[in-house]
Amino acid sequence: MTKEQATALVAERMAANDITYAAVAEAIGKPPVWTAAALLGQHPLPAAAAAKVVELLELPPDAVTALEAFPMRGALDGAVPTDPTIYRLYEVIQVYGPALKALIHEEFGDGIMSAINFKLDVQRREDEAGDRVVITFDGKFLPYQWG
Amino acid sequence: MTKEQATALVAERMAANDITYAAVAEAIGKPPVWTAAALLGQHPLPAAAAAKVVELLELPPDAVTALEAFPMRGALDGAVPTDPTIYRLYEVIQVYGPALKALIHEEFGDGIMSAINFKLDVQRREDEAGDRVVITFDGKFLPYQWG
Amino acid sequence: MTKEQATALVAERMAANDITYAAVAEAIGKPPVWTAAALLGQHPLPAAAAAKVVELLELPPDAVTALEAFPMRGALDGAVPTDPTIYRLYEVIQVYGPALKALIHEEFGDGIMSAINFKLDVQRREDEAGDRVVITFDGKFLPYQWG
Amino acid sequence: MTKEQATALVAERMAANDITYAAVAEAIGKPPVWTAAALLGQHPLPAAAAAKVVELLELPPDAVTALEAFPMRGALDGAVPTDPTIYRLYEVIQVYGPALKALIHEEFGDGIMSAINFKLDVQRREDEAGDRVVITFDGKFLPYQWG
Amino acid sequence: MTKEQATALVAERMAANDITYAAVAEAIGKPPVWTAAALLGQHPLPAAAAAKVVELLELPPDAVTALEAFPMRGALDGAVPTDPTIYRLYEVIQVYGPALKALIHEEFGDGIMSAINFKLDVQRREDEAGDRVVITFDGKFLPYQWG
Amino acid sequence: MTKEQATALVAERMAANDITYAAVAEAIGKPPVWTAAALLGQHPLPAAAAAKVVELLELPPDAVTALEAFPMRGALDGAVPTDPTIYRLYEVIQVYGPALKALIHEEFGDGIMSAINFKLDVQRREDEAGDRVVITFDGKFLPYQWG
Amino acid sequence: MTKEQATALVAERMAANDITYAAVAEAIGKPPVWTAAALLGQHPLPAAAAAKVVELLELPPDAVTALEAFPMRGALDGAVPTDPTIYRLYEVIQVYGPALKALIHEEFGDGIMSAINFKLDVQRREDEAGDRVVITFDGKFLPYQWG
Amino acid sequence: MTKEQATALVAERMAANDITYAAVAEAIGKPPVWTAAALLGQHPLPAAAAAKVVELLELPPDAVTALEAFPMRGALDGAVPTDPTIYRLYEVIQVYGPALKALIHEEFGDGIMSAINFKLDVQRREDEAGDRVVITFDGKFLPYQWG
Amino acid sequence: MTKEQATALVAERMAANDITYAAVAEAIGKPPVWTAAALLGQHPLPAAAAAKVVELLELPPDAVTALEAFPMRGALDGAVPTDPTIYRLYEVIQVYGPALKALIHEEFGDGIMSAINFKLDVQRREDEAGDRVVITFDGKFLPYQWG
Amino acid sequence: MTKEQATALVAERMAANDITYAAVAEAIGKPPVWTAAALLGQHPLPAAAAAKVVELLELPPDAVTALEAFPMRGALDGAVPTDPTIYRLYEVIQVYGPALKALIHEEFGDGIMSAINFKLDVQRREDEAGDRVVITFDGKFLPYQWG
Repeated sequence: MTKEQATALVAERMAANDITYAAVAEAIGKPPVWTAAALLGQHPLPAAAAAKVVELLELPPDAVTALEAFPMRGALDGAVPTDPTIYRLYEVIQVYGPALKALIHEEFGDGIMSAINFKLDVQRREDEAGDRVVITFDGKFLPYQWG
Repeated sequence: MTKEQATALVAERMAANDITYAAVAEAIGKPPVWTAAALLGQHPLPAAAAAKVVELLELPPDAVTALEAFPMRGALDGAVPTDPTIYRLYEVIQVYGPALKALIHEEFGDGIMSAINFKLDVQRREDEAGDRVVITFDGKFLPYQWG
Repeated sequence: MTKEQATALVAERMAANDITYAAVAEAIGKPPVWTAAALLGQHPLPAAAAAKVVELLELPPDAVTALEAFPMRGALDGAVPTDPTIYRLYEVIQVYGPALKALIHEEFGDGIMSAINFKLDVQRREDEAGDRVVITFDGKFLPYQWG
Repeated sequence: MTKEQATALVAERMAANDITYAAVAEAIGKPPVWTAAALLGQHPLPAAAAAKVVELLELPPDAVTALEAFPMRGALDGAVPTDPTIYRLYEVIQVYGPALKALIHEEFGDGIMSAINFKLDVQRREDEAGDRVVITFDGKFLPYQWG
Repeated sequence: MTKEQATALVAERMAANDITYAAVAEAIGKPPVWTAAALLGQHPLPAAAAAKVVELLELPPDAVTALEAFPMRGALDGAVPTDPTIYRLYEVIQVYGPALKALIHEEFGDGIMSAINFKLDVQRREDEAGDRVVITFDGKFLPYQWG
Repeated sequence: MTKEQATALVAERMAANDITYAAVAEAIGKPPVWTAAALLGQHPLPAAAAAKVVELLELPPDAVTALEAFPMRGALDGAVPTDPTIYRLYEVIQVYGPALKALIHEEFGDGIMSAINFKLDVQRREDEAGDRVVITFDGKFLPYQWG
Repeated sequence: MTKEQATALVAERMAANDITYAAVAEAIGKPPVWTAAALLGQHPLPAAAAAKVVELLELPPDAVTALEAFPMRGALDGAVPTDPTIYRLYEVIQVYGPALKALIHEEFGDGIMSAINFKLDVQRREDEAGDRVVITFDGKFLPYQWG
Repeated sequence: MTKEQATALVAERMAANDITYAAVAEAIGKPPVWTAAALLGQHPLPAAAAAKVVELLELPPDAVTALEAFPMRGALDGAVPTDPTIYRLYEVIQVYGPALKALIHEEFGDGIMSAINFKLDVQRREDEAGDRVVITFDGKFLPYQWG
Repeated sequence: MTKEQATALVAERMAANDITYAAVAEAIGKPPVWTAAALLGQHPLPAAAAAKVVELLELPPDAVTALEAFPMRGALDGAVPTDPTIYRLYEVIQVYGPALKALIHEEFGDGIMSAINFKLDVQRREDEAGDRVVITFDGKFLPYQWG
Repeated sequence: MTKEQATALVAERMAANDITYAAVAEAIGKPPVWTAAALLGQHPLPAAAAAKVVELLELPPDAVTALEAFPMRGALDGAVPTDPTIYRLYEVIQVYGPALKALIHEEFGDGIMSAINFKLDVQRREDEAGDRVVITFDGKFLPYQWG
């Protein structure tokens, strides 16, 4: 079974049995965004988590190997996402990317926010004018360092 | 003077006089990310702020109109950013975009996080293993709503 | 059953039984453009509507879950549509996009017309010189608002 | 003077003197969207309108010829617009394009909505929940007709 | 049966039985270019013609619906055709496109040659220096007309 | 003077003095489409024609060399033309390209219509339902021939 | 059987039975480059050659029709070849294309080297410093000729 | 003076004084294709040749350094050439690329024809049916060799 | 069996039986990077190595031919890799490509580092601040040499 | 002075005075690859180094600020480099990218080689069969680590 096949099967079983990413995350003891990314094929699952997912979703046993495999990452079909929910994130880069770069350089000097030593959280914040989606990027600053 | 010319002039004066975005932000009473985005040509400046910037950076008077003008937004030269600091933000969308979409739908139902009714903050968080860049996206949830 | 398979099955049954989008729209009590978009895989159907569609088109029961699922939106194969009927809409953006932007800014200030809090209608208007297609975009104005 | 130079000059003079597209439209007796498109370089101006614009904006006399010239149309820098206000129009095509095509075929048969024998209007509609942008496409239906 | 499947089946049967587009065109009483385009999936066939084609090529009965369906038009895999016979047509646009535009404007004023109210013919013209392919585009002129 | 500069100058002088391509074509004794293509920079002008054009449009003497130079051909900025008048020609290839290919092969065997040994004409044909643009491609058939 | 299926089958049988393109070329009495191109799906095989290939490679009888069919030509998956052996040919065009164009124009005047009335040969030339690949393009010069 | 400026100046002087690439090649004692490529900015000129070119074309003295500089190579504006004379070379790769690859592998084993240890010649071959352009690629075979 | 099918099967068997590339490399007596590239479909395996791999991974016998076949090389789906581990290599070219070119020219003169007469190694280097990945490119310098 | 202008000026002065990157590197006490990258605009120079470069190359004083500025990184004009010396590096990624990824994962687990905490060296290694270019990538391994 390839990772793509395992991923598709996971999605089907979750939909058919009304199981949420939050529920799987709790079952395997991992944060929700990490769990959703892993089940969507962007992270390898540790052995125990893979076994748990296979049990929970009643997947065939050889799905374990597929879920544990290192993925070829990258989830967008083209360079620019077409889905409106994902596009808004891209729009933020188009409009604010250079501003974020300028302020990171101003505060930290030359370097980047790691996307590897990195965590991501999404929360609802209640607001009278309409609830808000709050997404937090939290990555280690890596200064340009010559070796 | 076009907006591009005003923007280039702003960058030159800030570099030559060692003026930071944080300093301009304080001077005009606006948040730093918004200020940086505006000075990089992605937001129109209100009249008072434009006048203040012109004074602070000793720009020619006709820069006021240019800074106030509505911009044609979009800061990337190609669809995929090449600058490493900005690319990491794009990589987050490639790796976590569908996960964020799935969790937004799970928590809020069908809809998007607005990139218009939206604010963005970048902070340093001290950490023994190396300080971290913390970027917070905070946008109103907009449910798909037929009119 | 994936959403793509459900969508293809819907198209086949509608063609084979000469059922129009207008007829389905009436059966499920939804506007025609919304209904066509949903049946073409761009909107999730509410449970009752999904069940009704499955009954009306004699689809297999597991199509219900597929029709209810959140779609990965975006209907064009490439960035520029090749189909002449759809291309004309794209041409309007190429020719009139900046004009619409300018007038929205002139009338409302800086911001956008929402494509989420949005409805769309298409009507025939009789005209002696040849009937006309009248498409109405109706979206909430969202001012740029910092948080 | 090329059309691009004339167009840039028009924008500068309008900004410097706070002249709106609505005002120019009234001065030359043309609809606002048409006027904005023409002043942005997407339509040739008739001789009288060109002369009026040159007078109103105090342009050099050879701008008349440039404003009257047939444009090479197409206003977007890339295939996908990056400006959020214009992108929302593109998103509508991505999400609703095939639905509009299906309904046009259902109502009119095989053919297109002309983008040439076509007019476009944008209006504000007051609404308690927030005013709305209403854009109306009004194009002649052209049936596929072999000669 | 989808339109793509019907189209592939048509090609197979025509090749296997040495039936030409000219022969089908005569059988259904339609011009050859139109017929070839329709059989290649770019036009819907009227009911009678579809039935005739199914009979002539001994296709399964449900091919009738597929041949009658409105196609999602556009026959090129990429933006630039790679096949040399088709590429030459594209080269003509690259070399002569602006010249044709200039002469259409000179003769007719601002507008286009319709590709919808349009017919196309291809003929052999004998010539001592080598026979010639003569392709005639014949489309209604549509002046830009505001509504 | 480069060819681009000469071409731009030609356009300016023609517009300023209301000289048509048809008039230049007659003055230099060449067909109109060829003349327009050459003046738009897609064909080298023979010495006599170049001299005549320089005289007629009162260009500086070194324009002669530029007009005579072999051009780097190709007039479109991107792969897909955005101008509606030129786009319709591209749409014809998208919709009818494979049909033309099939009929050329059916009539002539394997090969192409030359775009080099080729002429092009555009005419107005009066028609009660609206005059028509008739464009004739006339190219030598070149059979695939191995050496 | 489609041309793609026939082509894939040819490749499999050649590999399994260690049959070279040179051997097939000799068997059907055609030049090697032409033969390889035809077996890779870029040229139609004449009836006799198709029959011979089917016999030699023990293909199913309906492969004859597929091998005889006119191909939709173009062998590269993207615009730029990724395979290093093929890329070097592309690099030659990137580095020497305009030089070849300049010299063809200098020697022959305005026109092209035909790729249709064309043959191609590849040979090994022994050389002490390492043998060399010698590829000869041999195409008829076609002067730009207006009809 | 940049290499681009030197290259443009070379082209202008050659055109103005009717000096051919063949003549420059003879003057500097280099093959014509190499010379044309170098003068078009794709090869650095050795010091003596650069000096000779500057003298011959009466260029300013600082052109010597520019002609000697290592170029950033690559002469096409897009991935696919639009100029018909250059496009035919690209078409040859599209149609015959995999055939050349197959025959190189058959004759030499796994490897490439070098485009660096490489020479290129273009000749006219007289032919009653029309003279022919003969282009010879002559590159060292480089076998894949692990270190 | 095609090369793609053999490659997919290899990956499955390696994962299912926890066999590393290092282990296969040792078994066939080849360097690890070469072995991984070959098993991922980018190099043909010599007969003995192919037989060994088939035995080791218990592949069907006809996999031998597929593993020995010359590959159509190129492993990226698009021009820019999306996988973060591979993207970093691409980023190095974006940031340091021209620097490497400049230094190669400075040290060796005009030419390239061969990617054919080339070997590649990846090693772990222990480091207190975190272990390091050390990748060594080792390619023969090829001077530009005219034949 | 912008960074681009400073960079162009540096290149001109180095060429005119025959100053190598190695010489500048020694003068400013930095490694050669880093120095070349910085002078080509991909790294900011520290104040002392910028002053030294300005002195050494006799640049105008305001070049100091430009050399110190944070660059918008990314040196390739398109996604795929056309220069042969740089392209070979890209080809290595196309052919060996997944192999390097697989071996990094095998040795280090899931993660990347940093391109930020990274150094790069290029050396000549003498070899009887022709000297070799040896490029060493040396980057810190960053394991995927959730926060």
